[in-house]
Amino acid sequence: MIVGDDTALRASAAACLSGQAVRVKRFMEGRRGDVELLDLGIVKKVVFGASDAACGEASYRYVLEALKLLFTGAVSALVTCPISKKSIRQAGITFPGHTELLAHYSGVTDYVMMMAARGFRVSLVTIHIALKEVPASITSASVLKCISITSASLRDYFGVKNPLIKVCGLNPHAGEQGLMGSEEGMISEGIDHARSLGIRVEGPFPADSLFHHTAGDAYVAMYHDQGLIPVKTVDFRRTVNITLGLPFIRTSVGHGTGFDIAGQGKADPTSLIEAYKTAERMLLAST
Amino acid sequence: MIVGDDTALRASAAACLSGQAVRVKRFMEGRRGDVELLDLGIVKKVVFGASDAACGEASYRYVLEALKLLFTGAVSALVTCPISKKSIRQAGITFPGHTELLAHYSGVTDYVMMMAARGFRVSLVTIHIALKEVPASITSASVLKCISITSASLRDYFGVKNPLIKVCGLNPHAGEQGLMGSEEGMISEGIDHARSLGIRVEGPFPADSLFHHTAGDAYVAMYHDQGLIPVKTVDFRRTVNITLGLPFIRTSVGHGTGFDIAGQGKADPTSLIEAYKTAERMLLAST
Repeated sequence: MIVGDDTALRASAAACLSGQAVRVKRFMEGRRGDVELLDLGIVKKVVFGASDAACGEASYRYVLEALKLLFTGAVSALVTCPISKKSIRQAGITFPGHTELLAHYSGVTDYVMMMAARGFRVSLVTIHIALKEVPASITSASVLKCISITSASLRDYFGVKNPLIKVCGLNPHAGEQGLMGSEEGMISEGIDHARSLGIRVEGPFPADSLFHHTAGDAYVAMYHDQGLIPVKTVDFRRTVNITLGLPFIRTSVGHGTGFDIAGQGKADPTSLIEAYKTAERMLLAST
Repeated sequence: MIVGDDTALRASAAACLSGQAVRVKRFMEGRRGDVELLDLGIVKKVVFGASDAACGEASYRYVLEALKLLFTGAVSALVTCPISKKSIRQAGITFPGHTELLAHYSGVTDYVMMMAARGFRVSLVTIHIALKEVPASITSASVLKCISITSASLRDYFGVKNPLIKVCGLNPHAGEQGLMGSEEGMISEGIDHARSLGIRVEGPFPADSLFHHTAGDAYVAMYHDQGLIPVKTVDFRRTVNITLGLPFIRTSVGHGTGFDIAGQGKADPTSLIEAYKTAERMLLAST
């Protein structure tokens, strides 16, 4: 089912589907196979490709409404579309993105962002911070947290019985024995700790020559681009964003709002479809 | 032709080619199609997979000898195999690698390391430094230098008439309008300067969603892993290291010494073959 606005859906369909009618049923009125819509009636007018406080407010309220449905058990998983960070800010909302918002309302502080294209999965130790802030954020604790949440999630939601995780170094050549940076010491500590908890984990490896192998069930990367570049370069269309560690299943598209092509009928829905399928597979594997 | 040691070549052939004779002619004695060897007679004994001062010294002298041949015009291009940084240091040689050594003896201070797998080419603004030192090394001058050397080399050595270069940002989402880091301002300055010189260049783009496009003739990345991860992940075996800005053509394999599999006959020669072919193609395009 969709949580959103009938007005916005119809405007998009009119602009992009050349008049084809989109048939949606009202929430709780559909039969098996029907698409149901919970129409929040917030958005009155749609201007494609522009940030807007009302739309920012709407995208925030869609998520709150979806959380209610998740917490009451009416739905089993959440798949989100991209939000405009600018619109959100214009609406006076301070969450930098979905992930942080969902973690807050779930009362969760330990969560992990994973990017996946089918079986190619990468978890991130740090996410949306400036590159210069990354080295100080790499601690044995932050590395351990990412490894352990990833390992548990692979077992609980991906049907991997005894997951093997491969961990990147932070520096070129994983520091080359301390010649280029020393943060690999912290990473090794985190890995050793995880191993003492019975987790199968190896590293830190030089990141540049790690991802062409397919030997592990997931990789752990130290920062945004280190983890997202390999997945998106190999299979951009099928890349999906997964939040691990929440009390429910949450997937999202792997791309942004694409305001430059909004309302033109050019957008590729593959990532959204893949996000939906991933959520479905995770649900099946977890029950 | 090969600059090296007959002893080392024979030891490798005996270990890896199960007795097949390797036929090489002495330097200047071969005919068209023969492999010639300039035997420096330095290495007396080969121990596979171990660093060694004598071998470090030898690998340094091979390069010096090759430079003589280049500067006298006896050869037209240089293709290097990996060297052990540890062996080099044990021999008391302070160059961190081939690239810096070649630049030094060529009297060149402005050079660029490019990684390429066929037409997928990435130049680096910074190379072998700790990640925490990267942000301060991103200046409009360093970005401009990398763009302009890359553009000139594409024209002079790759047969690209009017090269288009796409430049990465440093931070996640290229800083997202300053929300996550501000170095993109410096990068933009470098790009603007390059454009004022008539170079076709675009950016800075978010690096994670840049490399699945194939719209440019080369990319410029800000640091080692940002540039090497996409190329090696997509085509590790064919990845070649090219030094731009030297007074001669120089290519190299895209991988390290592989001491863990040395002497076992398992090594994949594809990258060396591709490095050779790349040098040949660059030579043809430049004449």
